[in-house]
Amino acid sequence: MNNLFGDIPASLPEELFSVLVEQEGLKIERIVSRGHCSPADEWYDQDTHEWVALLKGKAVIAYPDKPSVTLVPGDYLLLTAHERHRVDWTIPDEDTVWLAIHY
Amino acid sequence: MNNLFGDIPASLPEELFSVLVEQEGLKIERIVSRGHCSPADEWYDQDTHEWVALLKGKAVIAYPDKPSVTLVPGDYLLLTAHERHRVDWTIPDEDTVWLAIHY
Repeated sequence: MNNLFGDIPASLPEELFSVLVEQEGLKIERIVSRGHCSPADEWYDQDTHEWVALLKGKAVIAYPDKPSVTLVPGDYLLLTAHERHRVDWTIPDEDTVWLAIHY
Repeated sequence: MNNLFGDIPASLPEELFSVLVEQEGLKIERIVSRGHCSPADEWYDQDTHEWVALLKGKAVIAYPDKPSVTLVPGDYLLLTAHERHRVDWTIPDEDTVWLAIHY
């Protein structure tokens, strides 16, 4: 893969995670969702910071203690380590493409 | 700024560099070009790796010793530390938006 919008299978039963760069202290990955979201009441609680940009599609990120954020193409945000969050919604029947930088 | 395609001035006499994340060993920046390119025969020779994705527009990256690469939206590449390169061309009269991760 050398294009962030390429190599997306026709069928996507699960979210697709593709690691593009990985070394000590840094991981860059492309994530593709197609209507997928986090299980209800299940929160990500990560040991590292995650800077994430939505490049295509649409999504809602939810937090346990503050308002949800709707992301459209180009939007980015920082999820600091241990900031609990979940993907509440991604647009159905379309690919939502994320670029996530974990550090 | 919270959108990679936002906050672009109407006039852009120089390329625009916006640092989004900076800490020891990592810098994430948004770069906007509008027909800008590197000075002739001037090569970038960086101490860090640069993973770069083109998100909008079109560009050509040139190297001293291998063929140039044309980038369209979604294309990404890794410029390893001290891999000499230059931006040979960006599409005129349009914004070319890059996301660069230096590490």
